[in-house]
Order: sequence, then structure tokens, then C-alpha cells
Amino acid sequence: MRTTTGWRADGSTGTLRRTPLRRRELRPDDLAVRIDYCGVCHSDLHALRHHDGAAGQPLVPGHEFTGVVTETGPAVTRFSPGDPVAVGNIVDSCGECPMCRAGQENFCHAFPTLTYGGTDRQDGSTTLGGFSREYVVRDRFAYPLPPGLDPAAAAPLLCAGVTVWEPLHSLGVGPGSRVAVAGLGGLGHLAVKMAVALGATTSVISRSPAKAADARRLGAHAFVLSTDPEQLAQARDTFDVVIDTVSTPHDLGPYLRLVAMDGTLSSLGHLGPVTVETMDLLLGRKRLSSAGSGGRPATAAMLEFCAANGITAEIELLPSARVNEALDRLGRNDVRYRFVLDLSDLN
Amino acid sequence: MRTTTGWRADGSTGTLRRTPLRRRELRPDDLAVRIDYCGVCHSDLHALRHHDGAAGQPLVPGHEFTGVVTETGPAVTRFSPGDPVAVGNIVDSCGECPMCRAGQENFCHAFPTLTYGGTDRQDGSTTLGGFSREYVVRDRFAYPLPPGLDPAAAAPLLCAGVTVWEPLHSLGVGPGSRVAVAGLGGLGHLAVKMAVALGATTSVISRSPAKAADARRLGAHAFVLSTDPEQLAQARDTFDVVIDTVSTPHDLGPYLRLVAMDGTLSSLGHLGPVTVETMDLLLGRKRLSSAGSGGRPATAAMLEFCAANGITAEIELLPSARVNEALDRLGRNDVRYRFVLDLSDLN
Repeated sequence: MRTTTGWRADGSTGTLRRTPLRRRELRPDDLAVRIDYCGVCHSDLHALRHHDGAAGQPLVPGHEFTGVVTETGPAVTRFSPGDPVAVGNIVDSCGECPMCRAGQENFCHAFPTLTYGGTDRQDGSTTLGGFSREYVVRDRFAYPLPPGLDPAAAAPLLCAGVTVWEPLHSLGVGPGSRVAVAGLGGLGHLAVKMAVALGATTSVISRSPAKAADARRLGAHAFVLSTDPEQLAQARDTFDVVIDTVSTPHDLGPYLRLVAMDGTLSSLGHLGPVTVETMDLLLGRKRLSSAGSGGRPATAAMLEFCAANGITAEIELLPSARVNEALDRLGRNDVRYRFVLDLSDLN
Repeated sequence: MRTTTGWRADGSTGTLRRTPLRRRELRPDDLAVRIDYCGVCHSDLHALRHHDGAAGQPLVPGHEFTGVVTETGPAVTRFSPGDPVAVGNIVDSCGECPMCRAGQENFCHAFPTLTYGGTDRQDGSTTLGGFSREYVVRDRFAYPLPPGLDPAAAAPLLCAGVTVWEPLHSLGVGPGSRVAVAGLGGLGHLAVKMAVALGATTSVISRSPAKAADARRLGAHAFVLSTDPEQLAQARDTFDVVIDTVSTPHDLGPYLRLVAMDGTLSSLGHLGPVTVETMDLLLGRKRLSSAGSGGRPATAAMLEFCAANGITAEIELLPSARVNEALDRLGRNDVRYRFVLDLSDLN
């Protein structure tokens, strides 16, 4: 086994503590990656809150990171030591089901292996995430980091970025599209940047008037204050796509009513049961969908698109020793717009 | 005022009683229609169960009927006395909003005037439905009944028919499409006939093995027994469109899991709040939609399609004096597949 250092959950408190970690020896198609930057995602918070330390499974969060290849297995052809690389929230899949064959490994029928908290398909071990200095990953699930993208600000593209890219791309957003992004956080601010770069007329929907200036700065063309019934009424039936990134459980009705006829509400901020009135779907022949993560081709395409358009996340970069502070502030939505940990302090 | 006879709810019991009714004098763009046949819809049952007789609003159900024009207002050009005609569940709309201008009067922003229980846009009276011998309707909301369609069996096309036509048509169902219809009742059996005529490979999903033979007789190519986990597993991710016509509240998860990637579940049997797991939408990028009724162009197109393909409902025709028996049996799903009232006994 290889050894590295990372931030692991202390089951009794949910606090992360610096600890030595083990990584597997490289298989023929593995890369060893020195992790430089890892984004802090709402999923990390969710995993920590629901982690049962007593069950004995170790938890090291982190599933959007960038770094440098340090070593390659003998079958690896796409990467060499020294290559800048990025890894997202999926590190393996069955490779044989129709979804994997279609390049939608995120929908793998046998369920993809998650970057942390997943079960390795070969040795059955629990995967440990990117809040650490090294990761060993199968080459298929590493992506070359395109030149020109700042590696710290690019880290959140690997989860937040591809999660909003997927619906924008699959729903055909482009010039002439009318897109609204509900919630201006880690997911939302990337959705705004991407929608604008795709050529869509882009609005931000938020309950916070203070977000209006930020929305404009990010390129949005309009702002809808969701606490103002008049603004909601004016925006009724006007968006081809509404990307709902609000992370707490909430009523989807007000957002559905903003969707134009034959348009789609993509609910991706809150994963869990959602309740909708069928009348809100029926009136205007609207569609509800969701998204999360992406397959290998979509992830690669998203990175190319971001490189071509100079898109990265707006981040607060912290030394990894401040990870607990970052998680605490994220829990209060006190971040603009994504925390990224600098893992060089784990040397 | 004109007088006719119909079946009106007795608020104290929910029973319908034969009673004289008033209809308005013809406005310039009105038709008087002698109603010959009126289908019995689940909505009628719903309206009766929720009717508060004490509130003093009369309730005469019925919103899918065929008959003959008996008189026309001076501005009517599309119809003449003697013309066979059909009327559905919408009898007016604002005519000015974007939805009306797009021919989607069923989505009218000012809400369409329903055939019964609606409020007339000119005199404010409560509309009374088709369980009666005469109806007075604005000509825009009457449809010529195409030759060759049996007027009794065609009556259910005006609500059940257009409700299933809308999603099949708007989702682009045609040769090569894989369609499943969940629930084989008034809506479902018409959805099967239409999907087959559109060229789709069509399956029926039902919890009742006894429906398999009927499904085949209606033209379905396959049958999925929804109580058999193995059959559900085999059908996973295989349908581009699932039309869910089940009228009671139910878990949409099992049906969503049968939808193929980028496909749609159209939930139209049960109108009300529905809860879905976002993961069931996310895994396979699936969409939830609904449908109900249709605009004027869709209704006319549906009638033409049915005439061209010899599609009408499978009905049990009863004299209107047996309306309470029909409603009672419908409440127990004891009908194959739609009751139609013969209103000639109201002469």
C-alpha cells in the first residue's frame, strides 16, 4: 500500500482530522495523482452529517479536484508523470451496461463507483476522497486539465460544473434560448457563466436582492426577485429552461410557473423526494427533470468548453487545515461561490 | 332563455336527478346542439364527490359529447343545422393571451371556461354540462364530427382521447418509438390504439394479468405485469414514453424506472400533487410531464387522425336514466372501457 495524508471524519463529532491514509498500489491502468486543489461541495456536508462513525467506515470527502500525475501504471497511455489532471465524483463503472456503452457512466446500471464512500470494484475497499494529498485513480476516469484553466478555480468544474453543464447541454441551450438559474451559489454561478457563454439570454432568480449585482457581474442579463409576486407574475411562462440549484427542500411550483410552454425545470440543487402539482406541469406542457454529474464524454466536453470560454469557478481558496471552517461556513451558505482547499499544506 | 332537460346533482346525496335546465339564448356566434351521446369521465365522479350542494351552485356533469347542430347564431359560418358535431371540456377562453394565440386554449392564462362548473365569460353564469339534451356553445369550441366515426363511440375522444393524444403527439411518438401505457381504462385503451396507429411499439403495463388479452386485442405488442419485479426489471429503461393513466394516487418511481434515457413519463391519470425521487429522474436524464385536454388545433387533428385510422372508444352505451349506475360502477373501475350515455331518453 502507498501512504498519504488527508482529512478524515471523526465519527463522534463530524469534524475532520488530519490523518495518514492508505492508497492502493497502482494497477496497470491506474494513475497516482498529487492533489493540489479540491473543491468543497454540498454533498461533502451531506455525507458528513449522515456519517455514522460507529459503523466503522472511514469518510474522507472531496470529489472535485485537480493535480498532477506523479506515476502511471504500465497500461496507461493517455497520461504521463507531470501532466495536469482533473478528477470528478466518479472513479469507475461497470463499463458494460447500455449506459456505460453510451458514455453515460454516471447512469451505470451497476451504479458508478463514487470517488469517496464508494466500493472499489476490484478489492471491495471503501473509496477515500480528495481531501488528501494523493489519489490513485483508473486512467479512464481522469481528465487532462486543459491549458489556460487555473487549477484551483477549475477544481469545482469537476462536480458543480458538469452537474449544470449536463442539463444545459442536453436540453440544447444555445443562442436564442431563455435560461433562468434559481439560486446563485456554487452550482448556480457556474450555470450562469455557462448559459451566457452558450449564447442564452440568462436570468438569475433569487430571494436575495443583494445577489442582483453579482448576477450582472457574472454576465446575467436579468434578475428576478423570487419574493416579489409581481416580478414572478411578469416572468411567468418565459424561460425555456430553469436550472434550479437551491439546495434546501422547497416548493417547485413557483419555478415551474416560470417555465415556458414545452420548457423544462431541471431540479438539481436538492436531491431527494420532490412534490409537484401535476397542474403546474400540465398547464403549458412543462417538464421536470434532474441532473447530477455527467459521463466521461460530457465531462471532457465541459472542460473543453470552459477552457475555450475562460470559465472557472469563483472561489475562496483556503489551506486545507481550514477545512472544518469551510464546511461550517458552507452550511450557512456563507461562501462566494465555492471553497477550494489548497492541499499543499499536507506535505 | 331556452329550456332543456338534464341530470343535475342533488347536493345532499351526490345522486343525479332528472330536471329541467335552462340554456342561454343564442349569441351571434353560438350553436345549439342536440346532444345524442355523452361520455362519463373520472372527472365527473370527482366533481360529484366534491360538490357542495349547500353552496347553491348547480352541477350537471358531462364534457365529452356528440350531437347534431339544431340552430346557429347569425355570425356562425362553420356549421349549419343538421351537422354532426362534437364538444369537449373547454367551451371558451380569453382568446388573447400567448397560449390562446398559440392554439393552446387549454392553457389559457385567464383559465379556459370549462364545459361544466365553469363561469361564462359574458354573463357570469355557471356552465352546465353534457348530461342533458341540449347545449349552447360558442362555435369556436365545437368540432365537426368527421364522417365514419360512430357518434356514440366517438364521444369519449373529446376528453379521454385528446388527453392521451396531446402527449403522444407533442412527444413526437411515431414509427420506432417505444411507448408503454400504464393502466388500461378509459384513457389507457385509447392511448394504446393511438400509439399503435402512430406506428409505435406499444406495451401495456398493468397490475392485472387479466388485462393482457385485452391489451393484445387493442393492438399492444407486449404486456408488463407491474406486480412482477422480474418483468419490471427486464423492462427497465426501455420506453421512450410512458403514458401513466392510473387514476388513483400512486408511486411514480416504478414507472419512471421503465423510461429510457432522455424519455418522458407523462402522468395524466391522477391530477394532484405527485412526489418523485429526483434520483429516479436524474439516473437516465428522464422527464416528468403531465397532460390534460388539448387546444383547438390538437383536438381537430386528433379527430382527423381517429377518423383516418378508425379509432373510437370501446364503450358501454346506457340510456341516460342509468347515469347513477354508470357513475357507481365507474367508481369501482367496473367498465370496459368508457360509459357513454344515450340522451335520447330525455326527449
